[in-house]
Amino acid sequence: MERITVTLGERSYPITIAAGLFNDPASFWPLKAGDQTMLVTNQTLAPLYLDTLRNLLESAGIKVDQVILPDGEQYKTLAVMDQVFTALLEKPHGRDTTLIALGGGVIGDLTGFAAASYQRGVRFIQVPTTLLSQVDSSVGGKTAVNHPLGKNMIGAFYQPASVVVDLDCLNSLPPRELASGMAEVIKYGIILDADFFDWLEQNLDALMALDGAAMAYCIRRCCELKAEVVAADERETGLRALLNLGHTYGHAIEAHMGYGNWLHGEAVAAGMVMAARTAERLGQFSATDTDRIIALLTRAGLPVNGPESMQSQDYLPHMMRDKKVLAGELRLVLPLAIGKAEVRGGVAHDIVLAAIEDCQKS
Amino acid sequence: MERITVTLGERSYPITIAAGLFNDPASFWPLKAGDQTMLVTNQTLAPLYLDTLRNLLESAGIKVDQVILPDGEQYKTLAVMDQVFTALLEKPHGRDTTLIALGGGVIGDLTGFAAASYQRGVRFIQVPTTLLSQVDSSVGGKTAVNHPLGKNMIGAFYQPASVVVDLDCLNSLPPRELASGMAEVIKYGIILDADFFDWLEQNLDALMALDGAAMAYCIRRCCELKAEVVAADERETGLRALLNLGHTYGHAIEAHMGYGNWLHGEAVAAGMVMAARTAERLGQFSATDTDRIIALLTRAGLPVNGPESMQSQDYLPHMMRDKKVLAGELRLVLPLAIGKAEVRGGVAHDIVLAAIEDCQKS
Repeated sequence: MERITVTLGERSYPITIAAGLFNDPASFWPLKAGDQTMLVTNQTLAPLYLDTLRNLLESAGIKVDQVILPDGEQYKTLAVMDQVFTALLEKPHGRDTTLIALGGGVIGDLTGFAAASYQRGVRFIQVPTTLLSQVDSSVGGKTAVNHPLGKNMIGAFYQPASVVVDLDCLNSLPPRELASGMAEVIKYGIILDADFFDWLEQNLDALMALDGAAMAYCIRRCCELKAEVVAADERETGLRALLNLGHTYGHAIEAHMGYGNWLHGEAVAAGMVMAARTAERLGQFSATDTDRIIALLTRAGLPVNGPESMQSQDYLPHMMRDKKVLAGELRLVLPLAIGKAEVRGGVAHDIVLAAIEDCQKS
Repeated sequence: MERITVTLGERSYPITIAAGLFNDPASFWPLKAGDQTMLVTNQTLAPLYLDTLRNLLESAGIKVDQVILPDGEQYKTLAVMDQVFTALLEKPHGRDTTLIALGGGVIGDLTGFAAASYQRGVRFIQVPTTLLSQVDSSVGGKTAVNHPLGKNMIGAFYQPASVVVDLDCLNSLPPRELASGMAEVIKYGIILDADFFDWLEQNLDALMALDGAAMAYCIRRCCELKAEVVAADERETGLRALLNLGHTYGHAIEAHMGYGNWLHGEAVAAGMVMAARTAERLGQFSATDTDRIIALLTRAGLPVNGPESMQSQDYLPHMMRDKKVLAGELRLVLPLAIGKAEVRGGVAHDIVLAAIEDCQKS
């Protein structure tokens, strides 16, 4: 069992990483006998894990209620979150309840924001079941729902009490979801850790085949990198913004195409190539390194071009609603080398558009 | 001009209290030329103040957009809050925007929660226009919207950047709203300050006649008391719960009768008498002091009995959803004397029911 700590003073919390965690109630620290919990999951995951988890927790004397939401990014809304509040109030659950988010990024983000907001804040535990949520969205306390005019526009910085990463969950993950998570894994290499990028180049095939040892190392390394960044900059006033590499472009793809048609990691993959091309056009990144990124994303089964139906001009209105925009100016995360990135404002829009067009070749 | 500081480290902020503040852009610290703002108000207040405030701010070089919501407690919902997000995203407003809440408790609570949640948190300024919001809800950072199953059940602790109390607003306040605010004023005397309760007994007629000097003192004293409590216990782990005197009973009245039929202060007034009767039945409060409370509330034009259409049994299901409930046990704020109160758990439900019935006599 690997255990990493996200260091945030009195809000510090552990990330526990191993196979078989759903067989051991101790995985679900700090829950204890007598606690009241609300397990939030979706219709796809409920048949796979709900009974196992419920039985485990109940055997440890923990009270478990449940709410099962529809599956998909298009349900990450205020209206669907309201179903969680209704379930909590019908029982009712008090301020001492604990929400358990069993699912991928959608369930984790929505449940986290529900926990931040229910009675102005109750405890919650992240139990990420997808690679993407295990390496990224379950750690760090960014919670949110989408608005029709922008992704993750409504939310809170709100840290979980613990994160429980059971590697066995990946065995039931559809291949497209596995690839989507790999986009965020590759992101860590590009922005923070050239050695890890090298390691990914050497081990990608093992990861795609779900090799246990390789996957355990990969997830631990991503969580370590994320934990360091979050500890240094919880509320994204600086360093943390680097984790958004590819996301400003990617969010535009997701919003334009309709949430759920392009998976988040797919949009981020294409977005990272666009960021690399933007950096190339600014003379701060080499075409050779872009080629390495493209090669690795392609091996992971990820897109490296934007959607054919989307013109470069379609990106900008969405990009101008990015949360990094300040005083009406677009700010982009751009790579400087493999393992190093920066946030840069004042990039001319025609350079951004040209870089997007670089990624529209078939 | 009176200025009080709410002391919360780097989140400290001023409350500015005076007549004529809407004529001086300096009232709206920390706004400065070039800032982008979204003014949130309702259909009743917009014709009274919106142009004045917009002209004032624009003359100081501040950009002002606006969103006008329907007026009433029944609109303090997630769905109406979403209209604020839509207005912000349509422009769009960035993470460096400032929301200005111009209105009573409904506008302040909803706008504050919108500010807490928009892009995971933007700045906001409270401009309370009712007595109730000036002495209570605009100070202290409790923001929320209602759920059909409970009042203020969804929200955040989120402090404003400043609070601007223009005493002139009270001149246009309907008498029933003035009385509703007076319920919260009287509450401060009961829970924290016997001298202030005495002063209210001597000066209530001047206050109800909107005497400027009396009202300025009254509002300043309430804000001072609230600021002290909030500084000591921002997230309501102890002392702050005292500010809820009468609210557990009162929220049950509001929820049962439908939001907006009983004004918040009216429900709190009846609830404070119920709390006093509960305390009497527990042998910790004198009937003489209850009589003083009843007399003062009555002079302010407030109800001291519950609604005739509501039976004592109707209260409990609502009261059990109170945010002070822990481990399924009701916890009540009860007076010990005029000027002193406590939070008490484990009160037998039949005592609570009997106290409610004490307040059903005609």
